[in-house]
Amino acid sequence: MGMLEIKTERTTNKKNQPDVDKLGFGQFFTDHMFIMDYTEDKGWKDPRIIPYQPLSLDPAAKVFHYGQTVFEGLKAYFNVDKRVQLFRPDSNFKRLNASNERLCIPAIDEELALEALKKLIRVDCDWVPAAPGTSLYIRPFIIATDPCLGVAPSKNYQFIMIMSPVGSYYKEGMKPIKILVEQNYVRAVAGGTGAAKTGGNYAASLKGQEIASKDGYSQTLWLDGKEKRFVEEVGSMNVFFKINGTVVTPELNGSILPGITRDSIIQLLKSKNIPIEERRISIDEVVEAFHNGTLEEAFGTGTAAVISPIGELNWLGEKVILNNGEIGETAQMLYNHLTGIQNGSLEDPFNWTVTL
Amino acid sequence: MGMLEIKTERTTNKKNQPDVDKLGFGQFFTDHMFIMDYTEDKGWKDPRIIPYQPLSLDPAAKVFHYGQTVFEGLKAYFNVDKRVQLFRPDSNFKRLNASNERLCIPAIDEELALEALKKLIRVDCDWVPAAPGTSLYIRPFIIATDPCLGVAPSKNYQFIMIMSPVGSYYKEGMKPIKILVEQNYVRAVAGGTGAAKTGGNYAASLKGQEIASKDGYSQTLWLDGKEKRFVEEVGSMNVFFKINGTVVTPELNGSILPGITRDSIIQLLKSKNIPIEERRISIDEVVEAFHNGTLEEAFGTGTAAVISPIGELNWLGEKVILNNGEIGETAQMLYNHLTGIQNGSLEDPFNWTVTL
Repeated sequence: MGMLEIKTERTTNKKNQPDVDKLGFGQFFTDHMFIMDYTEDKGWKDPRIIPYQPLSLDPAAKVFHYGQTVFEGLKAYFNVDKRVQLFRPDSNFKRLNASNERLCIPAIDEELALEALKKLIRVDCDWVPAAPGTSLYIRPFIIATDPCLGVAPSKNYQFIMIMSPVGSYYKEGMKPIKILVEQNYVRAVAGGTGAAKTGGNYAASLKGQEIASKDGYSQTLWLDGKEKRFVEEVGSMNVFFKINGTVVTPELNGSILPGITRDSIIQLLKSKNIPIEERRISIDEVVEAFHNGTLEEAFGTGTAAVISPIGELNWLGEKVILNNGEIGETAQMLYNHLTGIQNGSLEDPFNWTVTL
Repeated sequence: MGMLEIKTERTTNKKNQPDVDKLGFGQFFTDHMFIMDYTEDKGWKDPRIIPYQPLSLDPAAKVFHYGQTVFEGLKAYFNVDKRVQLFRPDSNFKRLNASNERLCIPAIDEELALEALKKLIRVDCDWVPAAPGTSLYIRPFIIATDPCLGVAPSKNYQFIMIMSPVGSYYKEGMKPIKILVEQNYVRAVAGGTGAAKTGGNYAASLKGQEIASKDGYSQTLWLDGKEKRFVEEVGSMNVFFKINGTVVTPELNGSILPGITRDSIIQLLKSKNIPIEERRISIDEVVEAFHNGTLEEAFGTGTAAVISPIGELNWLGEKVILNNGEIGETAQMLYNHLTGIQNGSLEDPFNWTVTL
């Protein structure tokens, strides 16, 4: 059986596009969206591109009650040849299916999803912003739609993709962020859903974020749920430390999201022969390295910011200052190299980019 | 300032009511629903009863992506005087606000919520089923509606109440259930959202439930996320054990839902001078009590089933049989007493019931 046909219904009422300076993140959406339905008897069916529009759902739909939902985030860029390119989209759809498995959601056809995304971008190609640092953020997600309150996996789902032109994350240049190490609240634990990209992880993180913000910190550093000792993630990013010339990032332990930017950074470091270790790293080790002068840099990695250098970590009131609060050279070099591949100004020996 | 006025718009198209034998749980909904909006500048506003209808939400609404949602569950009963009564509704709205606090959702006016619920039940009073064991299940819930993909608390919400006539949980009489003790997956951990009634906890539990079902077990017994040693919940119920004449239930530790049925059972036991302890209880203690013959009973408690006796626990392949797989006398006595108070056939010295 071949791939399902993706139908397209074009809008007759195109939106006015926002000013590129006012884009921000995830606030404006393009003229169209992709949608596909799942029913128990027919499986995934009726993939279609339609005008961007509200979802009409029964108030008993399971997504409103039991959080049975997964999502992804990736970006499309205008490259130097004025063509649109995607960064590792196959990895995103593969991870979406890994999340589906954890959340008891039926797998999607990854190939069909990529074809649908390419088609959707072509329909809305005038929405891909061209200014330096801007991109088109893509949000694939799946929601459980059964209008039934029994606690059990849904029998009906919708897979949707929406797209948002986003501004440069570093409008006024890259700036190190201040991070509060969270002592009480926990984002995820081994055996939970931390390795899946599902709403509950983000819902759990809001309170820690609120506390950090009140104290003037921009994100939370999450420790493991078991011992509250080992570093897991920072905000909604993976985290890296450079200690005595070696880059260290927490190993994937079941409660950490397997970030695609994380993986790209690891591959980039290996290609440059910079020592990189994936292993457990305790907050004590980080603080000790600070005290003995071997803590050189720290940074977060994720699709939104790509690299987010950390200037300060607050642990139990002690301020751990990194690289005098300035951008580290490893962070800067990785940022330049990865964004260069993403926007097509640098060569891509990894075959990460997919040009439309 | 007085309470906001609750407006009512009645349906002109009443549904046919389902046969009482086919009710099941949470599958049919009444003719009306309650809805109230929250905006950052005006707070909670415009409380209204409207015909039951789909919700129309932007696909970027935060509830679809970041699981920022809370809910409650309670029941209304036709009592022996042919009047409708609620069971401890004030406790549900109080707990809804406790969940709101953990999920960074603005608190609701608990008094207004109860007034709105009474008014909604009056509008749909012909939907309260009268057959023995049946009731009207009420589902209050709040969803984050901001159409914006930044990971941050929403600035807009909807508080909704829907109602579903539900059948007798024990149509063919109470029957002990078989439970699989989960060794790998975790429902919640201290510092997480386990004590809040939020979608993510239920999403996390689906996988364990799926594994249990495949092995012929009807629910999962959840152990703590930290040591996978201490008993937390069973399925989506609290759990009690009777060991050597004393009833033991896990203490509220931050990862266990503070069940209203749980609290009612504890108060009932105290009033009957049956020893009841709220403390940590390990799965080893349960198995040891089984081996030395002091494990007398086990049962789950929750709004849906009230009491659910446990006939078997499977721990690492060992089958722990409780009370020869039959209903324990404590479980039966508590079930009779509590449902008697709920349907008004027994006296209510605790002032738990609210008659409309």
